[in-house]
This record gives sequence, C-alpha cells and structure tokens, in this order.
Amino acid sequence: MFVTVFLLLVTLCARGGYGEEREEAQRPGHVSVVIVGGTGDLAKKYLWQGFFQLYVNQVSSGNTFSFYSGGLSPTDKATPLFFEILKAVSCSKNLSQERCALLKEQFLRLSQYRQLKTLEDYQDLAKHIEKRLQEEGMTEAGRLFYLSVPAFAYADIADKINNSCRPAGGAWLRVVLEKPFGHDFRSAQVLASQLGSFLKDEEMYRIDHYLGKQVVSKILPFRTENKKFLDPIWNKHHIERVEIVLKETLDVKGRIPFYDQYGVIRDVLQNHLTEVMTLLTMRLPVNQSSSEEVIQNKLQIFSSLLPLGKNQAVIGQYQSYKSEVQQELNKTKDHVSLTPTFAAVLVHIDEAQYEGMPILLVSGKMLDERVGYARILFKNDIFCVQNHNSIHCKPKQIVFYFGHGNLQYPAILVSKNLFKPVLMDGEWKEVTEHNDVSVLGLPISDYYVQTPVEQREAYAELISHIFAGRKNSFISTESLLASWGLWTPLLSSLASSFPRIYPGGADNGALLDVHLKGKDISYKSEVVIISPDQMSGTSANSFQVMQGKFRSADMVSAWAEELVEQLAADVQEAAEAAIRERGVFHLALSGGSTPLALFHRLALHHFSFPWRDTHVWMVDERCLPLTELESNFYTLHNHLLQHVRIPYYNIHPMPVQLNHRLCVEEDGGAQLYEREVRKLVNGSSFDFVLLGVGFDGHTASLFPGTKVDELGESLVALTESPVKPHQRMSLTFSAINRAHKVALLVMGKGKHELITQLSRVKDNPDKWPVTGVKPVNGTLVWYIDYDALLG
Amino acid sequence: MFVTVFLLLVTLCARGGYGEEREEAQRPGHVSVVIVGGTGDLAKKYLWQGFFQLYVNQVSSGNTFSFYSGGLSPTDKATPLFFEILKAVSCSKNLSQERCALLKEQFLRLSQYRQLKTLEDYQDLAKHIEKRLQEEGMTEAGRLFYLSVPAFAYADIADKINNSCRPAGGAWLRVVLEKPFGHDFRSAQVLASQLGSFLKDEEMYRIDHYLGKQVVSKILPFRTENKKFLDPIWNKHHIERVEIVLKETLDVKGRIPFYDQYGVIRDVLQNHLTEVMTLLTMRLPVNQSSSEEVIQNKLQIFSSLLPLGKNQAVIGQYQSYKSEVQQELNKTKDHVSLTPTFAAVLVHIDEAQYEGMPILLVSGKMLDERVGYARILFKNDIFCVQNHNSIHCKPKQIVFYFGHGNLQYPAILVSKNLFKPVLMDGEWKEVTEHNDVSVLGLPISDYYVQTPVEQREAYAELISHIFAGRKNSFISTESLLASWGLWTPLLSSLASSFPRIYPGGADNGALLDVHLKGKDISYKSEVVIISPDQMSGTSANSFQVMQGKFRSADMVSAWAEELVEQLAADVQEAAEAAIRERGVFHLALSGGSTPLALFHRLALHHFSFPWRDTHVWMVDERCLPLTELESNFYTLHNHLLQHVRIPYYNIHPMPVQLNHRLCVEEDGGAQLYEREVRKLVNGSSFDFVLLGVGFDGHTASLFPGTKVDELGESLVALTESPVKPHQRMSLTFSAINRAHKVALLVMGKGKHELITQLSRVKDNPDKWPVTGVKPVNGTLVWYIDYDALLG
Repeated sequence: MFVTVFLLLVTLCARGGYGEEREEAQRPGHVSVVIVGGTGDLAKKYLWQGFFQLYVNQVSSGNTFSFYSGGLSPTDKATPLFFEILKAVSCSKNLSQERCALLKEQFLRLSQYRQLKTLEDYQDLAKHIEKRLQEEGMTEAGRLFYLSVPAFAYADIADKINNSCRPAGGAWLRVVLEKPFGHDFRSAQVLASQLGSFLKDEEMYRIDHYLGKQVVSKILPFRTENKKFLDPIWNKHHIERVEIVLKETLDVKGRIPFYDQYGVIRDVLQNHLTEVMTLLTMRLPVNQSSSEEVIQNKLQIFSSLLPLGKNQAVIGQYQSYKSEVQQELNKTKDHVSLTPTFAAVLVHIDEAQYEGMPILLVSGKMLDERVGYARILFKNDIFCVQNHNSIHCKPKQIVFYFGHGNLQYPAILVSKNLFKPVLMDGEWKEVTEHNDVSVLGLPISDYYVQTPVEQREAYAELISHIFAGRKNSFISTESLLASWGLWTPLLSSLASSFPRIYPGGADNGALLDVHLKGKDISYKSEVVIISPDQMSGTSANSFQVMQGKFRSADMVSAWAEELVEQLAADVQEAAEAAIRERGVFHLALSGGSTPLALFHRLALHHFSFPWRDTHVWMVDERCLPLTELESNFYTLHNHLLQHVRIPYYNIHPMPVQLNHRLCVEEDGGAQLYEREVRKLVNGSSFDFVLLGVGFDGHTASLFPGTKVDELGESLVALTESPVKPHQRMSLTFSAINRAHKVALLVMGKGKHELITQLSRVKDNPDKWPVTGVKPVNGTLVWYIDYDALLG
Repeated sequence: MFVTVFLLLVTLCARGGYGEEREEAQRPGHVSVVIVGGTGDLAKKYLWQGFFQLYVNQVSSGNTFSFYSGGLSPTDKATPLFFEILKAVSCSKNLSQERCALLKEQFLRLSQYRQLKTLEDYQDLAKHIEKRLQEEGMTEAGRLFYLSVPAFAYADIADKINNSCRPAGGAWLRVVLEKPFGHDFRSAQVLASQLGSFLKDEEMYRIDHYLGKQVVSKILPFRTENKKFLDPIWNKHHIERVEIVLKETLDVKGRIPFYDQYGVIRDVLQNHLTEVMTLLTMRLPVNQSSSEEVIQNKLQIFSSLLPLGKNQAVIGQYQSYKSEVQQELNKTKDHVSLTPTFAAVLVHIDEAQYEGMPILLVSGKMLDERVGYARILFKNDIFCVQNHNSIHCKPKQIVFYFGHGNLQYPAILVSKNLFKPVLMDGEWKEVTEHNDVSVLGLPISDYYVQTPVEQREAYAELISHIFAGRKNSFISTESLLASWGLWTPLLSSLASSFPRIYPGGADNGALLDVHLKGKDISYKSEVVIISPDQMSGTSANSFQVMQGKFRSADMVSAWAEELVEQLAADVQEAAEAAIRERGVFHLALSGGSTPLALFHRLALHHFSFPWRDTHVWMVDERCLPLTELESNFYTLHNHLLQHVRIPYYNIHPMPVQLNHRLCVEEDGGAQLYEREVRKLVNGSSFDFVLLGVGFDGHTASLFPGTKVDELGESLVALTESPVKPHQRMSLTFSAINRAHKVALLVMGKGKHELITQLSRVKDNPDKWPVTGVKPVNGTLVWYIDYDALLG
C-alpha cells in the first residue's frame, strides 16, 4: 500500500540549501529509492537517517515512496540486519512522539531488502517496481540509486542499472556516487568515461559531503546577500590571505589499506578543501538558479589556478603511522610509506582580482584539535594614532566555521569592525549570547555570529538536494577532472618526497608551522630528523653551482633549479650594469620550452628587475599570428611579460604578420625588424642574448644547412625549419655575435648526447649552427644543467 | 694666538655619520666660524655647544679656529650676553675636568662677538680675518657662515658674504641655512635662485636637523650592512606598510605667528618625515661615498611618487589652537584658522619594487605621547598550525626609533623572528638587558636592539658633517624643490579644507585614527562636530548624480569626482555585458586631459575590470612617435595601460609611424588600422567609444571644416588640426556611429560656454563636429560635470 497525500511540490522549493534555485521540472509521483550497499557503514550511520528525513519532509508533498536496501547477501540473511538499522532512525525534535512513531512505522512498511548481485537481480527489482506501480495505478516520478559500495564496483552497477532499471516515460533516473572518484587525473577520466557510457551526466550525482555542510552550502548565498559589503573588499587589495583548514585529532588506524593508497591530499584537499576554495573565489553567478553558471564559474577558477609543484606544498606523516602500516599491510620493519597524513598547500589564482593573494589549504590527522574552517583574513588598513584597543584596530576577518573546535557549532562569523552581515533566511539566526571563547585570535564577542536554527547532517541535506535535482551541490564531471588536473601534477612531484615525521597531538608544537615565501611554501623550522632511517633515501642535493669551460667558452653548471637561479641573477646584473652605463638594457630572448623556467624565475622572484628601462626583443619567431599558442612571443608574453611592468613600447615582437599574411618576403618583415634594431639598439649590439640549442644543433632559428654566408651582414632573416611551422624569422649570427653577452642555456637529460657531441666537434656552423655563436667583442657563457652535462 | 697642533685630517674620516664616505679634499689650516644670529635661541641651545664639540674634536687635527658671533646689536651690548652663552657649553663625560676647563678657556679666547648689520660690517669682518691670518702666518682652510636668522634675511646676508667675505686661494666657503626654505614650490624656487646668484650649490648647507639624528643617519648604513637579509624582503611583496611618525605632546603656544603660516605639513612632513621616507626607500648607492649618487637616488624616489591630492591626507587641529590664534594674532572671536596641527598622509611609490605599498606619514601636536619612529611592518607569511605563541607567529618589523616614547633612547630594533642584524661600527652597541617595555606592539625582548654608545645631539653631528664637507646629510636644491613639488599640490588642495578638531592628549581617543582605502586615506570615524561654528563654510556637497537630457540624448551629470565614478562604473558594466554576450569588449578611448580622471579611476579602483577580454583602441592620435609625451597613446599607456593587466595583443595603438615616418598618406596607416578594426571587431561596432569635445566643438580628431562626406564609408582617416601637431589620425563618424555605446565626457568650468552653445545649435557636423555623433543602433550618453553644466 502506498501512502499518498496530494499537495503541490511547489511548497518544497523554498526549503534547504541554496535559496531560490530553480529546480528541474518535476512531476509528483512515485519515487523508488535504492541504496546499493544499504547495510554498510555509511548507510547505517547517515544514509537511512537521511532518507527517513526526506520521507518525513515529503510525506505531505504529493509524492509516494518505496525504499530498497540492496546488497550481495541473500535476502533472508540480510533482512533482519536491515530492519535493525531502520529501527534506529530518529525524528527531529519538533515532531511529537506519536507522529514520529507513526511515520517510522510507515517508513518501515515501505522498505525492503533485496539481493542485488546479478543482472537478473536488477531485472527483478525493475519488474517489482513496475508491478507495484501498475497495481497501485501510480505515475512514476523517478528512481534514485545510491551506490554506497567501493568505487571499483561503480561501472558494473551502472551498467546493470542502465541495462535493466531505467524508468519508462518521463520519470527521472538519478545515480549517486561516493568518492573516491579516481586517484589521479587519468583514473578519474577512465572512470568518468566508463560511467558516461551508461549514464548521462545529469543522471550522476557525485557526493562531496562537505557541500552538504550547512556552512559550506551557505558560502555562495552569504557572498550574494552581502555583495554590497564584500564587493569592494573581496580582492587582493584587501584580503591578506585565505586559510582553508581541516584539522583532525584521530589517526587512521584500521583504515590503512584504504588510506595508504590515498593520503591526505587525495582524501581531503583534492575534494573538500578544493570545493570550499572554489566557492570562496568563484565569480558569483548572475542567475543563482542556474547550476550551469555555477559550474562554469567554478571551472573558470580552476583554469586560472597557478600550477602546483613541489614548492607549493609541504607534507608530514604522524610518527606511529609507519608501524600501523607495517601491521595492517603485513610489512616488514624496514617498510617505509611515503603517504602524507598532513599537508599544507599554497594556491594562487592568476586573475587580476586575486593575483598574489595566498590561499592556504591545510589538513592533517593527529593534530592538536578537531576543527574545520575557512578564514578570510583582511589586511589591516587602519592606523591607530593613540588608542590601540579600539575595536577598529583589531584584525578583520570572516570565518566560515564548519564545526567542532572552540566554538563547537557551525557558524559564519564576521568581525564587528568589518560589517554587520545581512541576516540570512529563517533557517539561520544571529547568536548574541556567547560563552567566553576565542575564535582564531578574536574573542567571540568581537564577531557577528550566525548559526543554523537547526543543525542538520550533511547527508540529510544532500539527500534532499538529490531529490530536488539541485546539481549545484554535487561534483560535475568537468569540475572533477579540473580538480584532478590541478592536483595530479603535485601528487606526481611529491611521489618520492619524504614527509616530515611529527609526533602527534600537542607534542607537534611548531613543527608543522609553514612559511609562505611569495608563491612558495616551506616548513618554518629546519628539518628535525626524528627517525633517521626515514632519511636514507633522500637525494644528496649538495652540488653547488660550478664554473668551468665548454668549447673553450665559460660554462656555468648546476642542478636545473640553481642553474636557472644563477642565470636569472646574471641577467639582472647585466641589466643593472647596462642601465647604469647606457640608461637602457636590450634583451633578446629565444622561444621554446627551455627558457620557461627562466621566465618564471624572473617574473616571480626578481621584483627589482629594472623592466622600465629594459627592451625585450625576439631571437626568433615562428611564422604564426602572435596570438597562437605556438608563437614564441605568445609563450614569452604569457609566462613573463604579462607578469611584469614593462612599457608597451619596450616590447618588440617580430613582424611575422604584415598585410594580414605570414612571412611573405615582399612584405619585408625581416628588414623592418632590422631597421628597428638599428634605430634603437646602440651599435646593434644587444646587451644580452639568450639562446637555446636544439637536438640537431640549431640555435635561434638557424638550422643545419642554413647558408650562413648568404645572409651577409643582415641582422634578421627568414629561415626554414625542418619541422612545422617551417617558416621562421630569426636573428642572424651577424646580430648575435655583436652582442655584449650571449647565454646558451641547455637543460635536461635529453640533451646529454648533444652536449657530448658538441664537446667534440669543431666549429662548423653549416652543420652545427650553434658552433657559429662567437661574440666578436662580447662574452659567451654556456649554462648547462647537470642532467645535460652528466646524463 | 692660534692653537695649532699638527696631525693629519685623515684620522677624522672614520668618525661620525655615514661611514666610509669620501670627503671633499681638504687641507688643514685656519677655519673661521661665523654664526650670524649667534645670540639667538637656536645658537644658545644647540649651535655653540655643537661648535665647541667640533673644536674639542679638532683641537689635535692640524686645524686652527676662530669663532665669531654676529648680530644686529652693537658689540658692547651683545658681548656680555654672548659670553654667558659660551660659558654654558659642556664637555662630554669622557673628558677630565681639567682638560675640559682648559679647552673651554681656549674656546672662549678664540671667540668674539661682532656686529654684522651693514655691508661695511661684513667687509670689516673679512679684513679682520685676513689680518689675523697674515699676522699668524697661517694658511686658510675655510670660512663657515651659519645663518641662524629668519629666512627673509638669507638673500641679503648671502649677497654680503659673496661681496666681501669670500676667502682667497683654495680655501672653502660654506654657508649653513636653517629651514624654512620657502613655504611652497614657487617661493622655494625664488629663494633658491636668489641664493644661487650669490652662492654656488656646493657652498650651501641646508640643514634638516632630523638628518643629524643618530638613528636617521644610520638608516642607509643599516640597509647596506644588512643588504643580504633585506634585499629579498625590502619590497611590496613582503612589506605590509611603512609608518613614519612624529608625535608631540606640546602645543604651539607662543609660536603662533610663525606656526600659523606653516602648519604641521610644512613644519614636519615636507622636511623631516619626507627625508626619512627617501632614506628608507631610495636605491642604495653603489658607491656609498658618492654624495651625488645619494642625491640622484633620492631624486629618483621623488620622481616615482604618486601625486598627493586631497584624498591622500587627513588633517586636524587641536581645540585650543583657535583661541591661541585669536590671542597671539589679535583676532576676533569669529576668526577661524585652517592651519593643521595634525596630519596623516598616505604616500605611494609608483615603482615595481614598492607599487601599492602604503607609506604613512603622521605628525601632530597635543597628542598622547612624545615619540618619533619609522616602522617597517612586514606581512605575516607564517601559518601556525598549532602553537600560536611561537616567536615566529608574531608580527615582524624593523623600527628606527628616533627617541622618547616608551623606550626613551634612540635605537634600531629588528624583531627576532626576522633576522639578527649585523652589529654596526664601534659607535653602536647591542642592548641585551631591558626594562620591561613594549615597543609598537611587541615586548622589547622580542627585538634585537642596537643603540649608539654615546648619544649625540643632532646639531653637533651636523656641524661635524659641515666641517667635513659631507653633503649627504644636507638638503640639496634639487631635492628641496622635488619635495616641494610633491607637497605643494597637496597644500593647495587642502587650503580651504577644515581640519578635524581634536581635544588634545589622551582625550583624542580614536578620533584621529585613519583608514587606508587603496590609495586613499580618511578618518576612520565619522566627523564629530565639536564646535559647530567651524563648519559654517563647508561646501554642501550634497548633489548626487543626476539623470537628464542634453541635445535630446541621455545626460548624466554630477560633480567631477562622482561623474567619473559613474562613467567608470558604466564602462565596467558595458564590459561585463559585452563579454557575457560576445566574449570580448572593444573599447575605443580618446586622448586629451579630460579622460585622465577616468583612467585613474579604472586603474586604481576597478580591480575586477575584465581587462583580459578587453581590447583597447584609439579614437584618435597625433602624428607623433608613440613614445612622445604628447602622443595620446603615451598618455593612455602611462595613466592606464601600464597599471592594469591587459594582454599585449589586446592593445591597438594607431599606426601613425610606418616606414619610420609620420602619417604619410602612401604608407596607408589609416587603411591598416581600418583593416585591423574590421578583422577583430564584430561588425566594426565598438562596444564603447569614449569621446571628448574641444572648445571649437571638435570631437575625436574631427575638426570644424573637416568634409565629413568626403570620408565616405572609411572608418579611419588622416585629418588636419588647427593646432600643432596638425596631422592627426582619427576614427570617422562612420566608425563612431556604429558603436553600441558612445559616451561624450565634458568637464570643467571652461567648457560651460561651449555647453551653453551646444544646447542651442542644430546638427551641423561641418561647423560643430560633435553634433555628428549619432549612433545608428547604439546609444549616446553625455557625461557633463556641474562645472561645465552650471558654470
């Protein structure tokens, strides 16, 4: 028998999460809920409680329900267990005892356990649902499958659902998935494409339970409601930094087989903290009810994030983790796991609004307290002349407090010296009477505090959103892949890094404190080696920068990073000297990927570089529009020029496109560039020319077989490359060899063979163009990293 | 009789101020010191003491001295007074009593009072000096005139000195001047040029006694010695802000006739605090002994300062000042003085190293304490995971503490979590035992503290520098004028502003606290009107932005500032809408001075402007190289483009220079620009075109008499201007009238008559080109400020 009450769905729309969102058009009718893995831990702890709450809320909505718990065990064995679970669900306080008892009784009657193992099991379930629908003469609203099973089973189950359990007519199908959704970009992509062959994107609901937390789901509404206060201050000029923190006191004992595969970055940062970060920084949707706009704006943030590398993260591992791993994974005493249980990662968004604003994501096990929050700390823009105790002399911050910690309840806190936030909908209230606690450096009485009237479990929230088809609160495929796109390179670069070992709890002291240095992060204190055996594998990074000779010119050699540091310092020194002597610095730069590290170094570390008096010229260019990805200028612009303050007219791209065509001889682009050089560069002698060398020995765009002599005294020429695009424009040896300083940068193991060959061959510019680099009055220095030099 | 002892000067060079500075080549010999105004207050309090100390230090140097106190009084009347003053000089503690008595006796014997009133008096003095030199058979080293007289007498005395007191042979002449050196740029320039006709630049020593303070004169050496620590952090990325503060508790009672003419900005900020600021921010001289390099580097800072306007300052006046003025200047009860006794000014340096870093200069009378310091507060770049009491979790700062306040002695303080500074020369020592005081928010024990071994008076220091010819410690003419160049526009713009009235002392509470908002500063609290009569003259700035019609198009009108705010907001709105719809925003901007305010507004306040997707085009251009000051593009670049992050290839200057010549018809520059427009701008319809209008009714570079019809459908044309440079390139009406939005910005009283005329004339583009602006499918809005609209 179905319980049916006729009321319109409209009454629902105002409830829950993200205010005025327009839901998918829904018709009231019968809903079948299937929890696959319905007797597992998660289902037991949160899911059935959540679905019971959904039932209670929906009982007068015009919808009817049946609930199925699916599992691998036979029905007779699992049914008693299932009903034990159901009996434990509870009602919210505002329901009378009688009403509660009645509703629970109905809920139990609507629920049953079914074995779901084979395709036949799923076909039987479908037949069962259809039969009951017919018998009761009900319209079907939709079917909700909640997969509370290990991720490896997703594709198979999705296949079966697709095969046999799709509802007919206009009823919806929704399939809910729990993380992990892969462990890196590639695996996430594979999983997504497998699932994509069985389910449509809009049918998939990927859960990140953080998005069901009341405070997290209020971030966007809070930003919207308080737009008039936040708009002027929500940017790099006012925000000192953002901290998104989830600290835990527990260890992972008993969960090692899972955890050791993942670690804290995959477990917490890639999903929960990343989601919070996007909510805090994404552009507010113009139309709040548009899930699509929210998703697009999230993706926009991902596309603007600076890439994460080793220098953007520190990792740690609590001391007893090692023995837990040895025990639970049956490993010997010398087994070392590199899985981090603590991580702090520094993220930057490369958009004008947030440029340079540090966003710190921190999470760890076995820390001193359990607490989760996102804190936006504002810059101190007040100068107090006399009375430093005035409220306006204090720090200003907004804290999204997810729960636990000192405060013990979820809340949104705004320092009183910032603004009085708009009171949100009736589900939130202002707290004005406080215990004497301090939250993130300020006494609670210094904040305006808002908290949910009724605290709700994240799962119950999300279940109501799934039912309402509110996709905002779930992870789209695109945004999942974008997130893995961010985290995968970091995970790879950390793969062989040793986490710092920490004792756990209060004993950690200041051991995990971090230092933000521009775009980089490091532990504040020097390494403290707790268990020396952990350190055995560290690479002895003790080589320093080395001076020597190569092909009878000077050579500087070091590991890649130090080499680039040295080169950048040398470029700056040359710039300062040239400007002191001649008032201007003419720098000619090559394309290709090798100089990228130099560009980054100059852009991010050389803040005092005299760009105002520097002219940037191109060594060579591909005959492509300057706005094409493969254009040398495009690379130079994106990686260097747009990050520094160089006057427009000091930038000299090669004129490879004249009269709207590329490198046509008659258009005289090379001659035009040459005239510009002759006009602006004293004696046509560049102060610094940066060159690379290709596998075939080419340098600039002077390839083997180029008839060097035919170029005569020209400074710029059109040349031919053996690889596409074939047409190039290039400085000639006449131009290069007039320079005051020439640097030849060679990096990477791949260049080792070439370096070996070059150390042997005689000067023969026709065959080995790079051997034609012989500054007449200037100096040549080879910068060769150890990988290229030593192989 | 002259005391002569033969020792080489070289032994001196290591003493005092700025370490290894190379002094002017000096020969030992006789030195005549003349203090004009030698019985005045300053001489009595500091100067004779300073010269006595010089004498003590020099007594075994090979130099001999005679000292003259000059004044207007007859010799017989002034001599006893003078000797009273001399008797009061004291020795430093490390001299024995006997030695002290002996030196004092010698000093008195070498000193005499002379009336110095007429030219004859000066001639007599010169004869006297020469006679004694001859009698004693001494070589002359030099003559030092210290003018301790009101500034109006400087030129006259300098004239007399030049006329009659120049030493013969290679001996030097040095003339020392005390501030004020003018009260604005013009008067300082007049005074400088008057003095310049009598004295050479190297003969003038302009004193700012702050430069004699031991801590101030250690700023450059400290920066140099600690270069390795400071280089990485002495920039906008690490410095949160700089505060340069001089707080006083006294009022100016008794000095009103002087003070009321000057006020705190001229009295303290223009000189003392500005000097400290330049020392903190100037590029370190490569050659420390080069005065010229130090002066050049100071000038470089001045040239990089953003201009100061009303929005960069707040001013105050202590409450009883009004009645003091009425009393001392014999004014009636309704007399109001606008002279500030308190000011806080926000300075920004427009260089990559310091861009956006706030520098706050604060000074006032009748505040809560007497203290002077410069504080460099660093950004908090540490995240403390657990133990927030670690030293590294605390604020990091360097404090140059000039004296008084909590600490009571001059010192340089560096927070221990920053670095341990290099211990400076033997004249400084480290303080390790402290009283329990707190300095600027940190207990003294959290700092490394260095203090001078012996505290010396600023005047004694400076007198020794004058003697050594060390020009670093004095104000050069160029740097004086540069400083007035900075402060004069601010002083003018504040001339009719009402200072906030403050009660004085502790009662000021938070009344004077200031709020830094980007580049602007304001009082934190709303105006508290203490004496309402002070407010009578305030302009009722109550007009809001007004909407209306002008020449049957829409009009927006407001006071200039609000008008520009509105226009900037409208441009941004248009940009966002265009990008939403078409992914790109095409903005065409005019030259001239009217749009400057808009450029500043966009650069400094519209941080979220979508520059990445904006293309900037020129409405018109003068046929000049783009790097010339008068080029429209140059203005646009310097005031807008270089301050925002717009991709290089989104910038479209007009090609007025092709084939290295300007606007030659055959070079086809106009056609080239037109092709670029047609290629990139959808339908050749700019999204927003900003126009101005000239006194003759021209707009873009379309002048009266331009045959509009002859241009046909061309979008870009070469035109002729009645004023130089005559040749122009301009968008045509065909281009302008295709735009989606056109804004016509008209500002200033000077345009009132034009606006009146335009409100009457019919469309006649040949005569009144601006009447040809008639967007076909777009909208035209006139932005006219109240000055232009109402006259």
